[in-house]
Amino acid sequence: MAQPYDRVFNFSAGPCCLPVEVLEEARDDLLSYKGLGLSVMEMSHRSKPFEAIVQNAEADLRALLGVPEGYKVLFLQGGASLQFTMIPMSFLPAGGSADYVLTGAWGKKAIEGAKRIGTVNTIYDAKPSNYDHAPKLASLNYTDGAAYVHFTSNETIQGVDFFEDPAGDRDYVCDASSNILSRPMDVSQYAMLYAGAQKNMGPAGVVVVIVREEFLARAPESTHPMLDYRLQVENGSLYNTPPCWSIYVCGLVYKWLLRTGGLAERAKINERKAKVLYDAIEASGGFFKPHAKPENRSWMNVTFTLPSDDLTAAFLAEAKGHGMLELKGHRSVGGCRASVYNAFPEDGCRALADFMAAFAAKNG
Amino acid sequence: MAQPYDRVFNFSAGPCCLPVEVLEEARDDLLSYKGLGLSVMEMSHRSKPFEAIVQNAEADLRALLGVPEGYKVLFLQGGASLQFTMIPMSFLPAGGSADYVLTGAWGKKAIEGAKRIGTVNTIYDAKPSNYDHAPKLASLNYTDGAAYVHFTSNETIQGVDFFEDPAGDRDYVCDASSNILSRPMDVSQYAMLYAGAQKNMGPAGVVVVIVREEFLARAPESTHPMLDYRLQVENGSLYNTPPCWSIYVCGLVYKWLLRTGGLAERAKINERKAKVLYDAIEASGGFFKPHAKPENRSWMNVTFTLPSDDLTAAFLAEAKGHGMLELKGHRSVGGCRASVYNAFPEDGCRALADFMAAFAAKNG
Repeated sequence: MAQPYDRVFNFSAGPCCLPVEVLEEARDDLLSYKGLGLSVMEMSHRSKPFEAIVQNAEADLRALLGVPEGYKVLFLQGGASLQFTMIPMSFLPAGGSADYVLTGAWGKKAIEGAKRIGTVNTIYDAKPSNYDHAPKLASLNYTDGAAYVHFTSNETIQGVDFFEDPAGDRDYVCDASSNILSRPMDVSQYAMLYAGAQKNMGPAGVVVVIVREEFLARAPESTHPMLDYRLQVENGSLYNTPPCWSIYVCGLVYKWLLRTGGLAERAKINERKAKVLYDAIEASGGFFKPHAKPENRSWMNVTFTLPSDDLTAAFLAEAKGHGMLELKGHRSVGGCRASVYNAFPEDGCRALADFMAAFAAKNG
Repeated sequence: MAQPYDRVFNFSAGPCCLPVEVLEEARDDLLSYKGLGLSVMEMSHRSKPFEAIVQNAEADLRALLGVPEGYKVLFLQGGASLQFTMIPMSFLPAGGSADYVLTGAWGKKAIEGAKRIGTVNTIYDAKPSNYDHAPKLASLNYTDGAAYVHFTSNETIQGVDFFEDPAGDRDYVCDASSNILSRPMDVSQYAMLYAGAQKNMGPAGVVVVIVREEFLARAPESTHPMLDYRLQVENGSLYNTPPCWSIYVCGLVYKWLLRTGGLAERAKINERKAKVLYDAIEASGGFFKPHAKPENRSWMNVTFTLPSDDLTAAFLAEAKGHGMLELKGHRSVGGCRASVYNAFPEDGCRALADFMAAFAAKNG
C-alpha cells in the first residue's frame, strides 16, 4: 500500500521537485503500466509500449516548444556535461574555432570541455562583476567564421537569465538546462538546444537535444558510437538501451504542462512566483541583497545574500525547521538560492517570502 | 491510491523484470522517501540522503561480490556501450594493442568501439559456429604486450556464458552486463568489470564499473571530463548529476539479494531455473533445439529454435496468450530466447517448461 505523505518545500537547484500528480501517476502505474502487468522499468526498450512512450514524449515536447520541421529531438545520456564534449567533437572542426559566451559556472564548464578539442573564443566574460548579468546577444563581437556560438540561457548557480532568444544567421547552440519549458522559446533561432532533464523536465539521467538538421549535417560522418548524434538520430534515441524511466517521467511532465496551459500559461505563473521572492528581497530594505542585475533576474533560481554568514546560517536552519529545504547558495555566490522551477508550488514561494519578511524584521 | 495489478511473466533480455518487493518499496516511498517529504527523483544529488543512497549501494554491491580492497566502484551513465569507447580511450595506449575475445554480438560492438581508437587483436572469434560457445580462457593465444584482454562473460543474444573467472597475471576487462550477480565471481582476477544495470541490477540508465586501482593508474592524467574514470573516482561518481533513481533502485536490488542469501544462494536458484528450461528443451525429442553448447549454456538467456518459422510464430503467439512475453529470439540466432535473470520468478520457468512440453506434444 502507498504510504501517506507530507511534502516539504524543496528549493533544490536540481534534481528538484516534480509535479505531485506526475509522481502519483508514476506511483500508481509502478508495478503495472496501464494494466500491462509490468513496470516501465522492466520493459524492453524495443517493445511497442516503450516505443510509444518515447514517441509520445517527443511529440508532446515538440508541441510544447513548437519545434519546427527540420529539427531532430533526441533523448541521450550523460547530462549536459557530456554535451560539453559531444558538441565540439561534432561541430568544432580542426583548424576552426567556436564562440562561447560566459555568464556563469556552467558556461565555464562548457568552455573547458571545448578547449580540449579545439579553439574557443570567449567573446564575453561576465567575471569582472561576479557573473551578475548576461549581455544582449546582439551587442557581442562575434568571430568571423566561428563554427557556432554557445551560451547558457540560464545560469543555475548565479541565477542569471538572458531572457531573449538569439536572432540572426549565426548558429547558436544553447544550454537551456535550467530554463527550458519555463516560457515559450523560438526554437527556429537555435542551431541546437540541449537541457538536462533534472530541473524542468523529469528525473536525472536523460538530456534532451533539439538540433537543426542542416546543422547536424556538418557533424563528421562517424565518430565514437555513443558520441555520435547522427547514429542516435538514425536509431530514434534507441541506439543502445536508453534511460527508460527518466524518459517516461519526462513524458508525464510534458503532458502535465500541456494540460495546465502550455508554456504561455507557465511563463505567467513562473514570472508571478519569482516576483513574490524578488519583491520580498526588495521589501527587506537591504537586509536581503539580490545577486543578479534586475534585467537578468532568473525566474528559476533566485539568488540573494544576507548581511553576514552567521545570519545566513541562522536563516537556513530556521527555514529548514519550517520545511523549506535546499536554500543554501553555491559557495561561488554565497548566501541563498531559492530554485523555483516549473513544478515548485506557488504557495511555497509565498511561504518563503513570509518567512523572509519575518526573519528580516527580527534580525534586521 | 496504488492500483491492483496482475503481473505477466516477462522474459525480456533487458530491461527486464525486477523483484516485486523492490518495486513495491519504490512505489511506497515514491512521494516521500523514508518520510522525508520528497521523492528520490527530487533529491539534490549533493544532499545527505542521496549521498547515503549511493554509499549504501556501493557498500552492498561490494559485500555481495566480495570486492577486494584496492578496487574502485563507480556508477556511470551511457551503458556498457559507452564503456566500449571509454575503455580503449583510457587503457589502449597509442602504438599499443589490446586483445579481444569474440563470443557474440556485444563482444563485436566492444571491438568496433576499440578499433576507432587503436589496434585490436581479435584473439578468438566464435563466428564459424555462429557463436554457440566460449573458449577456455587458459587456452587462448594472448598477444605479448597487449594492454588488456577484453571478454564478454555472458553473451545476451547468443546465451553463451564462459562460466569461469580468468586466472593469471594478464589484465582482464570484462563486460558482465548480463550475468553479474548471477553467481559468485572472483573480482580479484579482473582488472575491470563493468555491467549495465538493466539485466540483473536495476533500471536502465546506469552502468557499474569495478576497477583495480593499479589498472586505473595507467589511464591518462586527464581526458574529456565525462569520459575520465579518474575524475569520476575523485568525485565518488558525483562529478555531474548521476542517474539518481536508477542507482537508488539498484541499491534496493542489492539489499534484496543480500537478504535472500547472497550470490551463493542466488547461483543455486539460477542454476535450478535454467535447468528447468534446458531439461524441457532436451525432453522435447529434438522439437526444440538449444543454440549453445552444453558447457556454455547461459543461466540467464536460454536460446533455442523450433522446427520452422511458422511454428516459432505460433509458439510466441500462444505464449503471449498465456501471459509469457518477450520470448522472441534475436534475428541473428532466430527462434526463441527466454531471459530469466535474477528477479525472474522460478514459477515462470516452470510455466514456460510446461507450455513448451504441451506445445511440442501438440505440434511435434
